[in-house]
Amino acid sequence: MNVREIIDFLQGNPRNISDDFYEKEFKSIRPLDEATDKDVSFLYDKKYLEVAKKSKAALLIAPPHLASSLSHPLVEVEKPRMAVLKLLEKWYPPSPPVPHIASTAVIANSVSLARNVSVGHYSVIEEKGSVGEETVIESHVHIGRNVHIGKKCHIHSGVVLYDNCDIGNEVVLHAGVVVGSDGFGYLQKEGRNLKVPQLGRVIIEDDVEIGANTSVDCGMLGDTVIGENTKIDNLVQIAHNVKIGKSCIIAGNSALAGSVTLENNVIIAGQVGVRDNITIREGAVVPARTGVGKDVPSKSIVSSDFKRLRKMEGRLERQRKKLERIEKNLEDTS
Amino acid sequence: MNVREIIDFLQGNPRNISDDFYEKEFKSIRPLDEATDKDVSFLYDKKYLEVAKKSKAALLIAPPHLASSLSHPLVEVEKPRMAVLKLLEKWYPPSPPVPHIASTAVIANSVSLARNVSVGHYSVIEEKGSVGEETVIESHVHIGRNVHIGKKCHIHSGVVLYDNCDIGNEVVLHAGVVVGSDGFGYLQKEGRNLKVPQLGRVIIEDDVEIGANTSVDCGMLGDTVIGENTKIDNLVQIAHNVKIGKSCIIAGNSALAGSVTLENNVIIAGQVGVRDNITIREGAVVPARTGVGKDVPSKSIVSSDFKRLRKMEGRLERQRKKLERIEKNLEDTS
Amino acid sequence: MNVREIIDFLQGNPRNISDDFYEKEFKSIRPLDEATDKDVSFLYDKKYLEVAKKSKAALLIAPPHLASSLSHPLVEVEKPRMAVLKLLEKWYPPSPPVPHIASTAVIANSVSLARNVSVGHYSVIEEKGSVGEETVIESHVHIGRNVHIGKKCHIHSGVVLYDNCDIGNEVVLHAGVVVGSDGFGYLQKEGRNLKVPQLGRVIIEDDVEIGANTSVDCGMLGDTVIGENTKIDNLVQIAHNVKIGKSCIIAGNSALAGSVTLENNVIIAGQVGVRDNITIREGAVVPARTGVGKDVPSKSIVSSDFKRLRKMEGRLERQRKKLERIEKNLEDTS
Repeated sequence: MNVREIIDFLQGNPRNISDDFYEKEFKSIRPLDEATDKDVSFLYDKKYLEVAKKSKAALLIAPPHLASSLSHPLVEVEKPRMAVLKLLEKWYPPSPPVPHIASTAVIANSVSLARNVSVGHYSVIEEKGSVGEETVIESHVHIGRNVHIGKKCHIHSGVVLYDNCDIGNEVVLHAGVVVGSDGFGYLQKEGRNLKVPQLGRVIIEDDVEIGANTSVDCGMLGDTVIGENTKIDNLVQIAHNVKIGKSCIIAGNSALAGSVTLENNVIIAGQVGVRDNITIREGAVVPARTGVGKDVPSKSIVSSDFKRLRKMEGRLERQRKKLERIEKNLEDTS
Repeated sequence: MNVREIIDFLQGNPRNISDDFYEKEFKSIRPLDEATDKDVSFLYDKKYLEVAKKSKAALLIAPPHLASSLSHPLVEVEKPRMAVLKLLEKWYPPSPPVPHIASTAVIANSVSLARNVSVGHYSVIEEKGSVGEETVIESHVHIGRNVHIGKKCHIHSGVVLYDNCDIGNEVVLHAGVVVGSDGFGYLQKEGRNLKVPQLGRVIIEDDVEIGANTSVDCGMLGDTVIGENTKIDNLVQIAHNVKIGKSCIIAGNSALAGSVTLENNVIIAGQVGVRDNITIREGAVVPARTGVGKDVPSKSIVSSDFKRLRKMEGRLERQRKKLERIEKNLEDTS
Repeated sequence: MNVREIIDFLQGNPRNISDDFYEKEFKSIRPLDEATDKDVSFLYDKKYLEVAKKSKAALLIAPPHLASSLSHPLVEVEKPRMAVLKLLEKWYPPSPPVPHIASTAVIANSVSLARNVSVGHYSVIEEKGSVGEETVIESHVHIGRNVHIGKKCHIHSGVVLYDNCDIGNEVVLHAGVVVGSDGFGYLQKEGRNLKVPQLGRVIIEDDVEIGANTSVDCGMLGDTVIGENTKIDNLVQIAHNVKIGKSCIIAGNSALAGSVTLENNVIIAGQVGVRDNITIREGAVVPARTGVGKDVPSKSIVSSDFKRLRKMEGRLERQRKKLERIEKNLEDTS
């Protein structure tokens, strides 16, 4: 694509662009500090302005309020990250896999495979399940009995799906994900832990992506559910009977305890913990490293422990000063 | 089982049950909000009373103090969760696996397999180990040299046991568990990290269950030990030379640093961290998201950071009011 | 080695050693509480002095200031842990593997294998990569396309390397490690999460060790880099575009969010979280369970939330006493 085409494609405005530069062609995007004079790069936050000024990129994408501080040839757009996403999808389309079922894959006779499914080396699919069109299952995947997987999914190496899981369309499970392991349920009797059977399923709806080494337990009775378009990062713990709505975001190392409910569009930052049986309502946000011990109202932002600490330090300082004034006052009057 | 038999089996008392209802038969338990008029359900905590009132379940199990608020036919029992456990075990007995050793399992000649062992596809068992009666090893499991596994264990897919591990009877290891990886031991010399060899073993005693993607490091010298009937959740880190007693509970995403000791019946909630070389004595409880930096006495409950924060906020507020009073006082007297 | 040789080897000083004891031979080191009269043991910290006094070890290694409190035969050295490391390396040298490529390993024709490479059962190496001399790849490993691995590496069972990873020499990846999974990048548009393609690589330099079930995401554009001699513990999350310098230490369950930079010799203790785009400069230390929300200067020690809490509790107590004094004062004067 030449510069003129890029500007049209992004519906942006040119800035610092000489006439002959419009014909120049680009096909790669790189970060500000790694871009060369053959690359496009982008700036979306003021804090990288100094890095941008020094960038060797031939063409920058930037929002109007930052563009004016730069002398590079650039394309002004309101939402630079969305513009970059469009270019990335155009320039680096995922290569469609050539469907192939490895000779070493072990697939039970009762499993129904749709057209153009791929199954990698040494993967195992047990009885009675099904796999939808164009789904790719990489190597060393274990799929238990009666597991149904939709179309256009990507199941990476080493994923384990326990029996009876139900996976929608266009779901991505990264390497090491475990779905359907037993929930953590025990009763104490005379100093011993008795296991409560975990008999429910896991249901993962369409367009969910789950990061590496994350674990999702099955329900005890009833199901664990992850709603459409929800995205979960690496090393997250989803306990039994959790119900997650649509288009939620859950960042790395967070944990949702048993029977937690997230409504739609909830955002959970990294290393958050949510106590069992809590409900977090639509659009609420939980900042990083925060423990959630009571229900969270819709669209609210939970106060982080970090902010509470900082607030208290401020109050302590103000009280200290007040005490000093009072003491001085008392001395003066005595 | 009909209602009369259920009441007998649970040693409960009938309530709101008409004569002809005693003959009605049930065979499924479902959660309050998912139960139909063919299901039994249960209530154990007051907070679900409203959900229980609306439940379509045909028969409820509930404790006396909650039963009186409900109009459903029900069985009163003192410990409803224990009653449900009894019914679950009766109605949903685990199906005994048909012992089978997959043709693709690679088992060294020197390994001793007892009667009725199952080994799944593509699992590998290296030299000199042994596997006890009726143990089930699923697919893609790696078992190193000289690993001894007891009877009636269930080793799920993708588990990795390093060399020299010792696993008791009736142990359950969920998918992705790693046992025996090197402890994290380095010495710094002239700005570089030198690895300390990790030469110890891991010993897991009878009736232990370990959740998905949890890791247990081997001892440096000496062993890492997990005591009988201890239950560990998903994504937990057990460092080198940790000694865990009997019947402990360790919930998700917690971490025990090197040489931590837990005595018997310790309960560790989720996302807890315990510093190296700490001892937590018998029956102590560590609440969720708490850091443990000093030894914990027997049967005590560690104060959570959350409670400490809340307590301080209360003290700050009381001091603020006192300051206000004093200031007013001073003004009045001046 | 006899005692005389041990003393020479460690350049230590004898203490409480009778003439005939110099000829006694030892070949095993065990912890203080597990050592027998055939073992050497060691003491490096005063807190284990009482354990040391009761130890049955025949010979102790200890620093001068602790040695004087012990009656065991012993070797005084300034750095007992370094001395033990030397003995461990001498007495327990790792047995060099007999190079062997399992008949069940699936290795693409275009992969270049150097001399003396080992590949375990059911491992898969896809097109165009290379593996250096004497590298050991255990069972069930998945190595994607165009992955280059240096010499003398040890890749444990169940590791997954996505396409295009670059691994240096003498790298150890423990079981369940995932390298190169997609970074967690989404843009929100009309309430839905749109995936940002993750196109970068992961570069792991020489002599890095990564613990069990840790995940390292690929860069979005540009690369995620882990510098030479850096050591990472179990269950750690390294997000996209993180840059880690040389000889860093990152302990268990910690998480570095996107585009975090660690310079050389940074120490991150357990369960730490570092916010995206933060830089931690050379030699800085982050204590356990600390959230890092702003850049950290060189050689500084970040104040832990724990210490901040304790400090505030102290200030509250001092203010309470001051308030009491003032109130008493006011009463007396009124």
